[in-house]
Amino acid sequence: MSEKAPWITYRPELKVLDCTIRDGGLVNAHQFSDAFVGAVYRACVDAGLDYMEIGYKNSKKVFPTDKFGPWRHCAEEDLRRVVGDHTAAATGLKLAAMADAGKSDWQHDIVPAADSPLDMIRVAFYAHQVSEAVEMIRHCHELGYETTANLMAVSNITEEEIDTVLEAIAATPASTMVIVDSFGYLYREQIDRLYKKYAAAMAGTGKEVGIHAHNNLQLAFANTIEAIILGCNRVDSTIYGFGRGAGNCHTELLLGFLRNPKFNVRPIIEVIQHQVAPLRKDLVWGPSIPFNITGQLNQHPRTAIEWTEGPNRDDYLAFYDKVVSES
Amino acid sequence: MSEKAPWITYRPELKVLDCTIRDGGLVNAHQFSDAFVGAVYRACVDAGLDYMEIGYKNSKKVFPTDKFGPWRHCAEEDLRRVVGDHTAAATGLKLAAMADAGKSDWQHDIVPAADSPLDMIRVAFYAHQVSEAVEMIRHCHELGYETTANLMAVSNITEEEIDTVLEAIAATPASTMVIVDSFGYLYREQIDRLYKKYAAAMAGTGKEVGIHAHNNLQLAFANTIEAIILGCNRVDSTIYGFGRGAGNCHTELLLGFLRNPKFNVRPIIEVIQHQVAPLRKDLVWGPSIPFNITGQLNQHPRTAIEWTEGPNRDDYLAFYDKVVSES
Repeated sequence: MSEKAPWITYRPELKVLDCTIRDGGLVNAHQFSDAFVGAVYRACVDAGLDYMEIGYKNSKKVFPTDKFGPWRHCAEEDLRRVVGDHTAAATGLKLAAMADAGKSDWQHDIVPAADSPLDMIRVAFYAHQVSEAVEMIRHCHELGYETTANLMAVSNITEEEIDTVLEAIAATPASTMVIVDSFGYLYREQIDRLYKKYAAAMAGTGKEVGIHAHNNLQLAFANTIEAIILGCNRVDSTIYGFGRGAGNCHTELLLGFLRNPKFNVRPIIEVIQHQVAPLRKDLVWGPSIPFNITGQLNQHPRTAIEWTEGPNRDDYLAFYDKVVSES
Repeated sequence: MSEKAPWITYRPELKVLDCTIRDGGLVNAHQFSDAFVGAVYRACVDAGLDYMEIGYKNSKKVFPTDKFGPWRHCAEEDLRRVVGDHTAAATGLKLAAMADAGKSDWQHDIVPAADSPLDMIRVAFYAHQVSEAVEMIRHCHELGYETTANLMAVSNITEEEIDTVLEAIAATPASTMVIVDSFGYLYREQIDRLYKKYAAAMAGTGKEVGIHAHNNLQLAFANTIEAIILGCNRVDSTIYGFGRGAGNCHTELLLGFLRNPKFNVRPIIEVIQHQVAPLRKDLVWGPSIPFNITGQLNQHPRTAIEWTEGPNRDDYLAFYDKVVSES
């Protein structure tokens, strides 16, 4: 038996991306106050996080401004209003935004990196959109951004589709290929398989593998740890697990696990208490029976989200019977 | 890469013990109505579970009946009032009770197994109590019970202490040696180490290794899965995670993971909806910031329990500062 205790040491190259505003915004149509976004930003800086994903760079046609808040589009003036003259050099924090294939006017809406507080564009796409994703990555890279490739809903596609996507992304300038468990379906042995597959496909390219887990089965943190153990150096989390449906790997749990002394959990606990936990008065997220059920069945969480927002939200049995009978 | 998918097959020898009443009773001093205990019992039978731990066999002197409900003592007449003429042969479910070293009048309070609906006595003990635990196991075995050895708070003792306990238990008639993460502190690599250590110490004795996880870090289910992957065939869970402090591995999540068709999650969801979830009106359990903090620091959850029951329960930052300053 090894005498080593890897759980009390750390890898300096492991970087944390907090996507509270981006993923949590899916719960409230990104209708956050500037004060809220600013508090999360300061918490990320003070906690020593590496990246903060502050929203989407999505189309105002697809997501009109009368229904969606500014963090769905991340217009430069909205960013500047909250983060001022932010620079990564001054704060240690890089800012990221996510652009979806099929939902973004990326050819027009993304300004050169030198003119933006954003440092990174994360390109989210489904397998069938990989060709657009490759174009987006190249375009954003040419504009001066670090880029990542986030293949969504990986639990719902075939091995051949995954392999084809990985081959296409390996040839791009993306810095990171992210394992995304959109439905919160994956168990640890599946994380192992995917990590090894992704890492093998990226070998020799200099790319990192990332992990973005959802908490339907209370496994977001555990699956993130598993990926880290295997070598994953880019990990996503959200403060208090705030995110769509069952939510995400909790930033405060992740920082408790990571032993890099540059991280400090106290500012995260502070922003939870004053900003994020109070959202529970009006918003619903986190693991619950409906999300357990859709996760176990490898389904998109939308039916569970509708149920938990409806009048029968506590009728777990009716939801179970409905989902089982319809599947 | 292996083509096998172990997560969709099952091991028939893997047995589930639901300890909702026993561990959940630590939240309300075991003051359950007979109707509640009966509903949990029927759910366990209907779900195809292997064992139900219905309470403690603890001393009425240490836990007086004016403060503690009947499931702290599991008097035979209380058991019979709820489970009637229960037999394992008729229901497929074996009933268990836990007896603590140092807190039980085990020499007098435990009747022969032939006269009780109980099939199993689980002996809980701290390392320094191992000699009494060995006597308890032998005594209960002679009375006709299956027995287990549950070494508590394993994260807080030395390797030598663990080794000494394992050697002592290996020589007893206990059927199972249980890994107990009382403080909800263990990460996956530590579970691996402990499982391998426990399994090696029990090799050749015919004993199984069990796992009892707490959910302080949202890892109870994940750590249970990890132990199962390694070969653990005796796993504890509670319905809706109901249990002391941060609670336990959720029975409904565990049954969703296990693929043995004899298990049925629907009765568990039903009893959650009608019996367990409504307890949340008056009782507090489950992972939250205070339990995250004590878990990360390898502390007993008692300070977090007091805090979550007190007037400042939402002042996470004050709790963090208090615990950090006192540690």
